[in-house]
Amino acid sequence: MPNAQPLANKRILIFVGDIYEDLELWYPKLRLIEAGATVTVAGPQADTSYAGKNGYPCVSDAKIDDMEAADFDGLVVPGGFMPDKLRRDPKVLQLVRDFDTAGKLVAAVCHGGWIPISAGVYKGVRVTGSPGIKDDLINAGALWEDTAVVVDRHFVCSRKPDDLPDFCRGILQVMA
Amino acid sequence: MPNAQPLANKRILIFVGDIYEDLELWYPKLRLIEAGATVTVAGPQADTSYAGKNGYPCVSDAKIDDMEAADFDGLVVPGGFMPDKLRRDPKVLQLVRDFDTAGKLVAAVCHGGWIPISAGVYKGVRVTGSPGIKDDLINAGALWEDTAVVVDRHFVCSRKPDDLPDFCRGILQVMA
Repeated sequence: MPNAQPLANKRILIFVGDIYEDLELWYPKLRLIEAGATVTVAGPQADTSYAGKNGYPCVSDAKIDDMEAADFDGLVVPGGFMPDKLRRDPKVLQLVRDFDTAGKLVAAVCHGGWIPISAGVYKGVRVTGSPGIKDDLINAGALWEDTAVVVDRHFVCSRKPDDLPDFCRGILQVMA
Repeated sequence: MPNAQPLANKRILIFVGDIYEDLELWYPKLRLIEAGATVTVAGPQADTSYAGKNGYPCVSDAKIDDMEAADFDGLVVPGGFMPDKLRRDPKVLQLVRDFDTAGKLVAAVCHGGWIPISAGVYKGVRVTGSPGIKDDLINAGALWEDTAVVVDRHFVCSRKPDDLPDFCRGILQVMA
């Protein structure tokens, strides 16, 4: 294939759990692979099938407890209602803080923003997200914008599945 | 966003119907939009929600009967069991023949190959597809290969959802 693979040698971590938004996980996953990256999908357990909000299954490659930010170049947090559960896990929040401290990609779409909120990394950061979590983002000290994608340093945010083309352009802008 | 949009001004037609394979429609749709293309998803009826094999809904933009190949630069046929129904529609098959005659992209993934088989456009064409339709492809005169993507002139084929990054690289190779 003649197309460039701008993310060759890059390693990306994606969180999965039950009621993840199907396309918000799968579109970035496949798009990052298309760009040459190696993607690890980590859930509460390894080798476990999680059901998307609309029913698409996703088998986890690894267990979140075993992950270290040092092994990756960036993090993608899909939406759906999965983040409501994962934000309660101190290991999830420590991983987000470690990506942030290292200046590595922290990308969140839709309700995915709940996780960086709970990690405490959004103060003063320009963001977008699901209108459902707009107030949570503002109360966490983030600067809300209603637009398809916001890129602020190593942070990339989008609102909904329709924004995924812009979301992935934003991720490529930060990573490539 | 700084990334190129190699398909700006390109118009793509995608077929939808019940029991379409969710990612095999949505990944190419979002990926082609990301590349700058205008995508029309046409089903048996316009403005109708079709359920994916795994449950993801897709609302059609237009009715297949109203479509003309002259209005598009390429065609993408997702898999799932949708093609079993659509291949019975003479309008679907005429559209495929019109894309082929014009030398425009005819891309099919998984069981999507059933539709170009019934349109009679696969004789002597190198293809891949779901192992479930391997015999149908060979009996239609196509030249079977078991690989993630096959690009033969304006034809692009893949086998399954895991092949979608390669499938879209193939489409971009033909279209860009």
